[in-house]
Amino acid sequence: MELGLVGLGRMGGNMRERIRRAGHTVVGYAPDTPGADVHSLRDLVDALAAPRVVWLMVPAGAVTQSVVDELSGLLAPGDVIVDGGNSRWTDDAKHAEQLAELGIGFVDCGVSGGVWGLENGYALMYGGDDEHVAKVKPIFEALKPEGEFGSVHAGRVGAGHFAKMVHNGIEYAMMQAFAEGWELLEAADEVTDVREVFRSWQEGTVIRSWLLDLAVRALDQDEHLDQLRGYAADSGEGRWTVEAAIDNAVPLPAITASLFARFSSRQDDSPQMKMVAALRNQFGGHAVEGSE
Amino acid sequence: MELGLVGLGRMGGNMRERIRRAGHTVVGYAPDTPGADVHSLRDLVDALAAPRVVWLMVPAGAVTQSVVDELSGLLAPGDVIVDGGNSRWTDDAKHAEQLAELGIGFVDCGVSGGVWGLENGYALMYGGDDEHVAKVKPIFEALKPEGEFGSVHAGRVGAGHFAKMVHNGIEYAMMQAFAEGWELLEAADEVTDVREVFRSWQEGTVIRSWLLDLAVRALDQDEHLDQLRGYAADSGEGRWTVEAAIDNAVPLPAITASLFARFSSRQDDSPQMKMVAALRNQFGGHAVEGSE
Amino acid sequence: MELGLVGLGRMGGNMRERIRRAGHTVVGYAPDTPGADVHSLRDLVDALAAPRVVWLMVPAGAVTQSVVDELSGLLAPGDVIVDGGNSRWTDDAKHAEQLAELGIGFVDCGVSGGVWGLENGYALMYGGDDEHVAKVKPIFEALKPEGEFGSVHAGRVGAGHFAKMVHNGIEYAMMQAFAEGWELLEAADEVTDVREVFRSWQEGTVIRSWLLDLAVRALDQDEHLDQLRGYAADSGEGRWTVEAAIDNAVPLPAITASLFARFSSRQDDSPQMKMVAALRNQFGGHAVEGSE
Amino acid sequence: MELGLVGLGRMGGNMRERIRRAGHTVVGYAPDTPGADVHSLRDLVDALAAPRVVWLMVPAGAVTQSVVDELSGLLAPGDVIVDGGNSRWTDDAKHAEQLAELGIGFVDCGVSGGVWGLENGYALMYGGDDEHVAKVKPIFEALKPEGEFGSVHAGRVGAGHFAKMVHNGIEYAMMQAFAEGWELLEAADEVTDVREVFRSWQEGTVIRSWLLDLAVRALDQDEHLDQLRGYAADSGEGRWTVEAAIDNAVPLPAITASLFARFSSRQDDSPQMKMVAALRNQFGGHAVEGSE
Repeated sequence: MELGLVGLGRMGGNMRERIRRAGHTVVGYAPDTPGADVHSLRDLVDALAAPRVVWLMVPAGAVTQSVVDELSGLLAPGDVIVDGGNSRWTDDAKHAEQLAELGIGFVDCGVSGGVWGLENGYALMYGGDDEHVAKVKPIFEALKPEGEFGSVHAGRVGAGHFAKMVHNGIEYAMMQAFAEGWELLEAADEVTDVREVFRSWQEGTVIRSWLLDLAVRALDQDEHLDQLRGYAADSGEGRWTVEAAIDNAVPLPAITASLFARFSSRQDDSPQMKMVAALRNQFGGHAVEGSE
Repeated sequence: MELGLVGLGRMGGNMRERIRRAGHTVVGYAPDTPGADVHSLRDLVDALAAPRVVWLMVPAGAVTQSVVDELSGLLAPGDVIVDGGNSRWTDDAKHAEQLAELGIGFVDCGVSGGVWGLENGYALMYGGDDEHVAKVKPIFEALKPEGEFGSVHAGRVGAGHFAKMVHNGIEYAMMQAFAEGWELLEAADEVTDVREVFRSWQEGTVIRSWLLDLAVRALDQDEHLDQLRGYAADSGEGRWTVEAAIDNAVPLPAITASLFARFSSRQDDSPQMKMVAALRNQFGGHAVEGSE
Repeated sequence: MELGLVGLGRMGGNMRERIRRAGHTVVGYAPDTPGADVHSLRDLVDALAAPRVVWLMVPAGAVTQSVVDELSGLLAPGDVIVDGGNSRWTDDAKHAEQLAELGIGFVDCGVSGGVWGLENGYALMYGGDDEHVAKVKPIFEALKPEGEFGSVHAGRVGAGHFAKMVHNGIEYAMMQAFAEGWELLEAADEVTDVREVFRSWQEGTVIRSWLLDLAVRALDQDEHLDQLRGYAADSGEGRWTVEAAIDNAVPLPAITASLFARFSSRQDDSPQMKMVAALRNQFGGHAVEGSE
Repeated sequence: MELGLVGLGRMGGNMRERIRRAGHTVVGYAPDTPGADVHSLRDLVDALAAPRVVWLMVPAGAVTQSVVDELSGLLAPGDVIVDGGNSRWTDDAKHAEQLAELGIGFVDCGVSGGVWGLENGYALMYGGDDEHVAKVKPIFEALKPEGEFGSVHAGRVGAGHFAKMVHNGIEYAMMQAFAEGWELLEAADEVTDVREVFRSWQEGTVIRSWLLDLAVRALDQDEHLDQLRGYAADSGEGRWTVEAAIDNAVPLPAITASLFARFSSRQDDSPQMKMVAALRNQFGGHAVEGSE
């Protein structure tokens, strides 16, 4: 089938390649991008036969909104937009409603797989009406990993991004789990070779996992991670997971701790610990350290 | 080779079977146990040719200590004791010292694999002197999973149990991660079929792991876990992990949150939340609920 | 001066009394309430001479919005509405904008003090333009505690509720702090009489505080809090505090832990701990407890 | 009465002064200290009439042990040692037993009050047998704050330090509470003048407390704490509180979060966040920052 693909970055570019390998036609567009197949959204729409499927792989928020807005003026009833970016699930219903008034379908799709997706396939969690999902199905089949797992119709519009968001929340805490364990092994002097312990865990243990394999891979490149700074960005899904939990009165102590650890990692100095230091000095005369 | 095995419970029994399948001779003992091969520690020692290797698979703490004590009077210089139970790593140096005075070697070994170990193999993390480890090596080979991973000589005496302890700490937080994500998906009404979302995650995602596979298996047996109580025991390693972290001034927020969630799960009512309720009532006149 | 007061519940009723004691005229209204001075918002507005000040002490969200809506059709340019309820600070700008179009001023005011406010005074944190604040000033003076502290013009519209929200976030963690300490003292058997230890702390310690005084008061009424259930509601400010922290990438581990402890306290059984129990059973054959 | 006082540091020196102001005789000793009244423990013991009371105000652990050891050879049956330092409560029973064999009494006493104790009095939590406590009573009376609160006989030997330890655990979380709230107010731009908000909270609020007063005092000295580094030491009691909680299976999420925040504050770079950064890079190609 034919697919319009908007966004050709790290994710979008590889996805175009994987879909093409499966025998589909992909018309890829991204502004001012050398490898783009067309040079405007209008050209992209014109290049596709109706009913069209256009997959967005662009930054969540304002960029996604502007592409949806522009496409809503170019597409025709019966066409379908898939938002495969990292949008907040609460945006999906708004987009679906906006497009439904024009007879355009909307499917949201959370995509996992990162730089490995081209070879291994991308895990897909999508939401939307059956009729719209059906039109995208061949593309889902092309993108997903081989085997019986790796894609799911998670529910109505928004369910895909919601499922992906929770996936990322879990991912935060799993990464934090390995990170805490690694730091403790490195700090204590019981274990001679921490990397070899991590390596051994890849078979037979309860914690064997892809993230563990990646940890070993990272340690093989830099045994004590000396080349890195302890600085971790966050792309939104972790925050939204905690907010969704608060809305539902669900306690998420480990996931939230993982999010907060990232926040702290990005502070050059901790304001709250200045206050703790100030209070200790006030009541106990404990020494404080001056700022640098 | 010949191995003496003390303890024939869920773990020990299966381990005897796996070692025998590898062609070794195992003399198994456990008090008042129908399947025991001998009926006393003395008989066990007598049944083995020197130099002997005796593997303990008994409860940590007092039981392990009493078996070490009794064996220290029965074994001869050149023999080796392996503690494969869930001992605290701080016990290992004591046992090694006690036995070294008698010329008996000591190796500590953390064992992971649970009820799946018989078929899949057991992950092994061991600590001790090279000469003692060498005597046990064929048994390690028999127990470990096939493939290149699954066993590691982690360092000096105590390093094996220390590595296993940290493994379990990581395991706590990974389980908590999946548990938190699952609760949130069940509580929110975005996702139609939470189990299918979990199932789909088994390929292509960042969080694919053996624990995820087990979660799907559990949900296939009881889709909403209605048959279970939210009650989780802890066997010590999580506590020791946090204590080791405190000793090393390493922050472990996710692992500790996971441990505390288990503590809370075992309380019929929460004393600390009684105090919070009492304080809210005191300052705000907020309603309180009476105990049942 | 004259004040219109909408809402005569636990807070509003006492505030009317305190303002009257200071010599002001209060026209109080609440629907279907015996002690109301007038029987409609229209009557309330008619009873006041312009420029009017009307203070809302009603539930946050829909109720506050409907009262603002109705008053916006009754008040005149130059009048001022004060929202003294527990509104989310993000509602304040909306209300201020809606009213500014009609020439009506808006001031938001966080109020602390609970059932003790009538005698001790209410701590006030308010936000808004100087000209609007000035019209309410005599009422602020009447409500606030004696002495130099207890009220603050925190900034523009929304700043009052924001400051009150953070106050409550701090309050959550302080209550949790005393609650955790109390539970530990009760659980360990070192201290003979936990209540007497709490009582002693009221002078000379670093933790002396009003909440500690209230804890002693609660323990004097029920030494081990046997009459209470460990169940704590939350009224929104704690949730909003965590959300504001996430928006600002500020880590709030203690405050968030306190919020989550309340969430957990309200669950009859913990879904997430069911999953932990299920996973332990899957890999280790650990016993699970059936639901009741 | 007469008191021997060992240790004349920040705490001991002021305590000597306060006890003298109450009319008692204090013989103070500290090695190589200009203001010492005697120049050896032997001189100190010789300067006191039996039955003697000797109060230790020296660093916990090895120093306290060595002083107890030396005094045990100098004192006589009927004498009493008071350990007023920050000893771990588990040391107390050992000291009591060691001294009881010689007929010497032992009382442990947690002391709170810091640099303010000289003027305001010291809060005291002590443990031990009634007969030993009785001999120290006049000193407790001299040290404690005026008023009805501020000292407690918390139980048997060890109970004093245990109560003080929990006091400090609570203190950690209260400090963290104010610190988190302060950071959030500073980070958000809702509130114009954070210091004035803190100042206002000193009356009428639920969170009014001595620590809040000290926070205002610190902000008056340095409005945004620009002179300080966000670096907080810990003196042991917080760690022991968490360990005691683990021993008793009591969840302490807020206190533990406060302890871990201090650990993190002392790390130049976070090893665990290096691992998180490494994993994000491995699966997603996310940029990492190099170490400096």
